[in-house]
Order: sequence, then C-alpha cells, then structure tokens
Amino acid sequence: MSTPFPPLRDELRGIEPYGAPQMSHDAAPVQLNVNENPYAPSEALASSLSEAISEVALELNRYPDREFVALREQLAGYLNTSGGSGITTDMVWAANGSNEVMQQLLQAFGGPGRTALSFAPTYSMYPEYARNTLTEWVVGHREDDFGLDVDAARELVEERRPSIVLLPSPNNPTGTALPPEAVSVLCEAVGDDGLLVVDEAYGEFRRSGMPSALEMLPRHRNLVVTRTMSKAFALAGARLGYLAADPAVCDALRIVRLPYHLSATTQATASVALSYVDELLAHVDDLRVERDATVAWLREQGHEVADSDANFVLFGRFADRHAVWQGLVDRGVLIRETGPDGWLRVSVGTADEMAAFRVALMETMKTQQVIGTEERA
Amino acid sequence: MSTPFPPLRDELRGIEPYGAPQMSHDAAPVQLNVNENPYAPSEALASSLSEAISEVALELNRYPDREFVALREQLAGYLNTSGGSGITTDMVWAANGSNEVMQQLLQAFGGPGRTALSFAPTYSMYPEYARNTLTEWVVGHREDDFGLDVDAARELVEERRPSIVLLPSPNNPTGTALPPEAVSVLCEAVGDDGLLVVDEAYGEFRRSGMPSALEMLPRHRNLVVTRTMSKAFALAGARLGYLAADPAVCDALRIVRLPYHLSATTQATASVALSYVDELLAHVDDLRVERDATVAWLREQGHEVADSDANFVLFGRFADRHAVWQGLVDRGVLIRETGPDGWLRVSVGTADEMAAFRVALMETMKTQQVIGTEERA
Repeated sequence: MSTPFPPLRDELRGIEPYGAPQMSHDAAPVQLNVNENPYAPSEALASSLSEAISEVALELNRYPDREFVALREQLAGYLNTSGGSGITTDMVWAANGSNEVMQQLLQAFGGPGRTALSFAPTYSMYPEYARNTLTEWVVGHREDDFGLDVDAARELVEERRPSIVLLPSPNNPTGTALPPEAVSVLCEAVGDDGLLVVDEAYGEFRRSGMPSALEMLPRHRNLVVTRTMSKAFALAGARLGYLAADPAVCDALRIVRLPYHLSATTQATASVALSYVDELLAHVDDLRVERDATVAWLREQGHEVADSDANFVLFGRFADRHAVWQGLVDRGVLIRETGPDGWLRVSVGTADEMAAFRVALMETMKTQQVIGTEERA
Repeated sequence: MSTPFPPLRDELRGIEPYGAPQMSHDAAPVQLNVNENPYAPSEALASSLSEAISEVALELNRYPDREFVALREQLAGYLNTSGGSGITTDMVWAANGSNEVMQQLLQAFGGPGRTALSFAPTYSMYPEYARNTLTEWVVGHREDDFGLDVDAARELVEERRPSIVLLPSPNNPTGTALPPEAVSVLCEAVGDDGLLVVDEAYGEFRRSGMPSALEMLPRHRNLVVTRTMSKAFALAGARLGYLAADPAVCDALRIVRLPYHLSATTQATASVALSYVDELLAHVDDLRVERDATVAWLREQGHEVADSDANFVLFGRFADRHAVWQGLVDRGVLIRETGPDGWLRVSVGTADEMAAFRVALMETMKTQQVIGTEERA
C-alpha cells in the first residue's frame, strides 16, 4: 500500500496551513487584521524586560521550572482582580498561546470517540484543535444577532453529550459576549462528563456591566476559563495563554503537556508584563472607547454592526465584501475578510488608525459599486 | 454513562506526568541528572541577548513571524557547518523544544492506524509522543552493548511497516551512536510510506570519526534529522528544537503546527545564541574530553560502561542501583536512575563537578554493600 511522499495522514492532504493573510507594513501601513493591541510595550516595560532577561540568560543552560509556579501565582493574583475571586495557584495553567492551552485541553479531555462542540460563526481555529486531536467536531448555530439561543444550545449538548464545549466570550469574529445565565445552564447540561471552556481571549475588553465567567468558577467545577496575554497585555509576540479551572483539571493537563513546555524567557516575559498591569490596562480602556466609537460611526454610516465586547468590530453586509476589503487595502488599511458571507472584521487600533480606516472606508464606498445588501433571509 | 471527574481520557487515568526527579541546589549542589550543559552562557552572550530583547520588546504587541524565516536561515547555515551540506532554509523547521518537533512529526505522519517504532532501551519520552498522538507504539530491542542489530531492525521495519522510526544517535540513555550504514539500510526499508527520524539531540558531542546523519540527507528523502539547542548550545531554558528534512516534510508540518508557535523572544534568543556558536562549541570540546575521561575512569574502577557519543555516561551494573544513587545524593551529587535495571546515568559536568562525582562514587562503593553484579544472561 503506497502513499504519495511525504506520507502525510490522509485527512491532512491538501489542507492549507492556518494563517491570516499577511502584508508588509509598506504595503499596508494600517494593520487592523489580527486583533493585535496597537499600543506597543512602553520603554519602561522594555527596559525592565531586558533587565530580567539579562539575569535569566545566565542560567539558560538549565531547564526552566517545569511547573512555572511563580508565574502561575502571579496569574492567579491578576485573575482575582479581573473578574475572579479565590483563584489559587493550583487553579491556573499556562502554555505557549491559547492555541496550546486548547490543544492540551482536547488532548486530555477530547480525542477519538469524544466530541467537541461550538456554535458558528466562531473562531476558525476550533475545528483545527479538534482535527489535531482526533476529536469529533460538532457545530451548532448562533442566532441572527450572533447570540446564543440557550435552550437550543442546551438541547444540542444533551443530544450530543460533548466532552468539551468551546464558547468564546466575547466571540471571535462577532464580538458577542456570553451572558452568565448561558454559562450556568450549559455547565449544568454538560455535567461531570465534560468541560465547558469559556474562551475569554478578549475578556478584558468587555463592556461595563458584562461579567467574566471567572465569577462562576466557584459554582461549576466543570467550567474552564481561558485567557491570553496577546490582547489586553499587548504581548502577542510572547505567546502566553492561560486558564483558570478546578485544580484537578490543571493537574490532568500535566499528563499531556510536553515537559518544560514554557521556556524561561517566556516565563520571565509574562512575569514582567504582569508587573505592568496598570499601564497595560489603561490602554485597554482607550481601546474600549475607540471600539464603541467605531461601532457608533459604522452604524451612522448605515452599516450593519454586531455588538462588540472585544477589540474588533464585525460589520457589513456587502454584496462583494472582497471588493470592500481590497478597496481598503488599496488605501493602506488591512482588515480581515472573515466571518459570515458579506461581513468584514476590523481590529480596533489607535485613534489615528481608526481615522484612517474611516476615511478609507468612506472613499471605498463612494468609488466602488459595493452597496450593502440585505441578502439574509 | 458517567465518568469520574475530571473527565480525562481513560488511557490517561492514573498516569504520572513525565519528569526527572528535581532537587534544590542546596540539597544536591552537583546536578548531573538531566544532561544539561554545565557551562552557563557567557556575560557577553547574556548582554547581547538582553540587547536583542530590548528591541524585540518594543514590538511584542505584534504577532511573531509565523514562518520564522530568519531563524530557519541561520539554523540551516549552522547545520551546514555541523555535518550537513546544501541544507537550505526550506529544509529546516523548529518548535518549542525537540518535544514539540517530535509531536508535530507524529501528528502529521503518525496518528490512529499508524505505527511508530523504536528500539529499547531508548528515550522515555518516545512512547509519550506516540500516546499523545494516538500512534501505535512498537518497540524492538537493542543488543547487549546497546547497539542495533541492523538486519533484525530491518526485518522488524519490513514486518510492521511503521510510518515513523525514531532512532536517537547518540541514544539516550545509553550514549550509543548509530553507524551511517544503519541509517541507509533502514531508510531503504522504511521507503516512501514512512519517515526515519534520527534524533541527534546530543549529536554535537559525537566522537571524532562518527558522522552525523545530516550527511545522508541528500540520498534519502524520507530521512529527518532532529537537533536541539538545549545541549551543545547550552540553552535548555530557551526551548528550541529543530530538524532538517525534505522541504515537503517541513511544509507538511505547517498544517499541524499551532499558528505563531515560536514566540518572538524564542526566535531572538536562538538567533543570538547561533551568533555565539564558536564560544559554545569550544565548551562542547571540553565536555567531550571530560566525557572520555569519565568513561575511562569508571572502567578503571571496574564498572561496566557503555560507549558514549553524548554528554552523559551510562554505567553499572549494580544489584541495588537505587542505593548507589542515594549514596551519591547523600554526598551532594544528583545523577539519574534510568535505563535498564542495574545501570545509572551521569551527565558530564565541569571538571570540578566530575571530580566531586568520582569522590562521591568511590565513597559510596566503599561504605555501602552495593557491589556490581553480573545478573545479565
């Protein structure tokens, strides 16, 4: 039985690797396509990090702390100021980006014969985590406003008995937050046979009054809340994702984590950033203001706009969204062609970047025949 | 159908996470248990790294280069000075430690319905990679001197048709190198239906005259050679494993790699270390000398010692190896209780550390009733 070289697994043949289209800064000076935080770390943070690394460097011949206890303790402390309470070190876990956190969750609790469930439209990496771990992938659907019909969601959970339910809050690419009642109902429905993972990658950007699922950890031992330092902490380049959950869940992840998966430099970098939390969260407030202004402006322009609790905004709907995307690129503004047909997603940048986006969008709408349509039934 | 909480996969229940026993520096000042390089990065390297990070820090809000092209180019350049020739950027891949490189190889080319094969005694993580990726694990056996019977190995390959053969050279924990003929014969036997992975984590420590499997890459497109910066480059804390292989193999790994798996700090750290290659490889020569002296001394003492092409030495055989291990710990020297029954593994440290090891072993052998035995048939 001969296979074409290289002998890739059949189900992976012909698959394009995941990745947002990338463009040079010259081609598109205003990059609003991958939900990065536009505020670079300050000189003070860079200097503290450089100092920390110069110490770490002298011990890089040794393996890092396999259990990264100091970092877990710091992350627990932060979570207790960010919607959580009573979160202890043994309730925290971390890995190289939320990607790896999710893969570890699916390796430990998913896999062959088990099912992971989410509700579309949602984050396009979720089915890839399932595929990578041989977990069956089941997808329900969101309402027209991208919210969740909690009764329908509960019924789907009861019917399919998933081992993992992946629910981003706010959802990517729609920006939609998950109300706490939904978390409660679905945790009950999942029961002890599974985990409900609330992905709060963008959790810090939620509008005031919207609680974090961290608040519900004490009531649901099958609840896992994931976070990342890529967004609010402006540390996408450092790759640090983490979660809070029952200590037994964290302990189980130690079985599937690759030993020493978090480098000494990653641990040090995350640790320094956590000591700058006030500075970093001040920018989060700036971005929330800019986000709300962007939603309001797009609505004034007559666009349809999804409510957003994130640092991005989904808007539409365009008969030819690619033409709109291209019109923006031609004007130096790179956004993302993602989400349901007809919609586009723009990341929230600085005030200057959003001004450039507004001008580029107005010009694009004027000069091109790309009128919003109402195609949806 | 109810499972105990948390709902871990059945085959993972009760498994202890992998990890060498760790001891504080106070409890065991001489740590020769995890094959670390005892030579810490120099002040000059630390200072260059600190400088590089202070630049990287100011862009950490952006995602890192997903394809880490600059680092791959540097790694290719290094491999062409370390046994390889004609290795190009598209023939190089890297991840967070060899662990992740191996997991990616098994995710892409192993998995359910496929088999991975190695020969015991060998690296204890191999079956864990197989388990994590649901790949069937088949293990043949090495000869009494820990070498490979190439004909028997070929027959096992022909019988089991593995998708991946994992062959460390030098082997861990025995230190045994793989002769180039064995690589040729087994590459032919595996054919296009699989990959032969030669794990050269300790490759730079090989004795003179022993070629690297990199030399054979041009002749076998199913050959993969993995390396790590943890050992020769004294960078265990930075977590950078890599491989050289056919460009089609590297390209396939992009499908299963998690996007942005290599942080900007990891890429920068590896890059700086590669610019210090001469300094770092000078210490490799020191360690090879110390290794050969350790082998010779252990033999003079009447111990049985495996030939070593690595930065560690397997020696024995003891009726109660745990007692010998404990005797050394009691004298401040931590080595590793691993490998076949009756054997112990000591990492090669500095001259001072090896002197401490020799004294501790002599005292242990004198004061305890732990005489070497000849139990093996």
